Amino acid sequence: MIEWIYFFDLCGTAVFALSGALAAGRHRMDPFGVIVLASVTAVGGGSIRDALLGTTPVFWIRDPNYIVVILITVLITLILVRKPKKVPQHTLPIADALGLALFTVIGAEKALNLELGGMIAVVMGLITGVGGGIIRDLLCRQVPMILRTEIYATASILGGICYSMSIYLGVENMHAMLLSMMVALCIRLASIKWHLSLPAFDLKKNLKN
Amino acid sequence: MIEWIYFFDLCGTAVFALSGALAAGRHRMDPFGVIVLASVTAVGGGSIRDALLGTTPVFWIRDPNYIVVILITVLITLILVRKPKKVPQHTLPIADALGLALFTVIGAEKALNLELGGMIAVVMGLITGVGGGIIRDLLCRQVPMILRTEIYATASILGGICYSMSIYLGVENMHAMLLSMMVALCIRLASIKWHLSLPAFDLKKNLKN
Amino acid sequence: MIEWIYFFDLCGTAVFALSGALAAGRHRMDPFGVIVLASVTAVGGGSIRDALLGTTPVFWIRDPNYIVVILITVLITLILVRKPKKVPQHTLPIADALGLALFTVIGAEKALNLELGGMIAVVMGLITGVGGGIIRDLLCRQVPMILRTEIYATASILGGICYSMSIYLGVENMHAMLLSMMVALCIRLASIKWHLSLPAFDLKKNLKN
Repeated sequence: MIEWIYFFDLCGTAVFALSGALAAGRHRMDPFGVIVLASVTAVGGGSIRDALLGTTPVFWIRDPNYIVVILITVLITLILVRKPKKVPQHTLPIADALGLALFTVIGAEKALNLELGGMIAVVMGLITGVGGGIIRDLLCRQVPMILRTEIYATASILGGICYSMSIYLGVENMHAMLLSMMVALCIRLASIKWHLSLPAFDLKKNLKN
Repeated sequence: MIEWIYFFDLCGTAVFALSGALAAGRHRMDPFGVIVLASVTAVGGGSIRDALLGTTPVFWIRDPNYIVVILITVLITLILVRKPKKVPQHTLPIADALGLALFTVIGAEKALNLELGGMIAVVMGLITGVGGGIIRDLLCRQVPMILRTEIYATASILGGICYSMSIYLGVENMHAMLLSMMVALCIRLASIKWHLSLPAFDLKKNLKN
Repeated sequence: MIEWIYFFDLCGTAVFALSGALAAGRHRMDPFGVIVLASVTAVGGGSIRDALLGTTPVFWIRDPNYIVVILITVLITLILVRKPKKVPQHTLPIADALGLALFTVIGAEKALNLELGGMIAVVMGLITGVGGGIIRDLLCRQVPMILRTEIYATASILGGICYSMSIYLGVENMHAMLLSMMVALCIRLASIKWHLSLPAFDLKKNLKN
């Protein structure tokens, strides 16, 4: 059981590290810069979560495997991703979506383990899921995905709510995790594919200051 | 007494959540994105303060009321703020100024409670007061208010100094808080109204690198 | 021994505060804004490090001397740096390079003191060395130095590896620190002077999304 959660966590770390490395490649960073951006993307969200919860030293300090996974991911990315052909369109947003789904559930699960209640669990899932990507986008001076009109935070929040509800309803933990990851992932991928978005709260023309 | 501080804290949370929601509305974010931006604006500064102080889990994890206040504020904002008429000019900076004044004193008060001395109290007031707004502006890719020439950090620092001095001089806590909030708020509002600013430290032309 | 590390730490604080103050001067900030930017630059990296390690309250709360050093540095900067003549070209990147070298070793040393292993020591050195500068550049809306093609993170990482290796090989701590600071500083200064850079990982043309 725990092993599975750990496995999901390392998978999320790898896909977020990939998304960070690809973002770095778009800014012509050197190999060490790529490692840095991949790392903050992969462990940024979980680090903020642990710092807020006070479960310090944060997870990747207690378990260096996370950094090893990041280094291996970056190494593979630097070796394989060379020619245009090698990078399918949307690789970055899809890797980001996978990480979002995995980390959202991991974060919510950690909060429920600490018996912090469903609402905090959803928030912790959101922080874990979107934190790293926000730092990546800030460092790359991209508009943070969270700010774009496509469904993003929504996918994480709904995934977290789904997980909290499932646990509350007595669903077995592994099933709840898989279900919630699917929910978050499908919502996010669908919004990428069909450019879905909720009705936006638009004040652009209304607010002068 | 404590109840009053708690009340001020929730008020600051509401006004900062409002400023975050309005900023989100200017970036055409969807409702969940609005909740995220309102939340980081409202609890960002206090979260950084608690993480630095090590008083974790941070305040809003220990007391979910803060998140409830944010959700209600966002809901009301989404419902009421629709038509141009409904958003008076300067609503955002004024809400921001109110939050700045309230959170500055709350932050300084928490530091003095931990017997950290006047200087650290001023710094904690500043972090609590400007932290959330800085995160909001970074995510929205605005020039952080703290960077604009208008008086901003200054209002928070003077409010914090006023509070520390008052307590040092034996002024009753509630009076010291109200006085210092007034000081910070008036300085900030005056600088908005009359575009006051201290003489700037200008190297633009001097520094080439 | 400890006194020397403490001295290096305060030196790093001063040079990073200077780099923050100069950056503030390029954005025409008022004196209090200058203090804020100088402070986040000087203590930002170490604060993130301490928050992640859970060694809270963070260092500058436990020891107000750091803030005193920052205030004195800002005061001197505001007084001396007035005329173009007074600011030699590259003052900011050189101050930044000095801080990078000093803080990298300080951060790695703290991690090894906590017996966290060489890899975490390198990461902690990196966070301590580049954290403050990244926050400074984000607030000033500059491209973070870490993103530019010049060698930057690389200098910190190699300095950290050098320190960890030296300690592992039984080199006396002070010698290891001086050696590693030299390594990081020389690499960084050389890259500034001759615009050295490692081969970049370039996907600009490859990645469409």
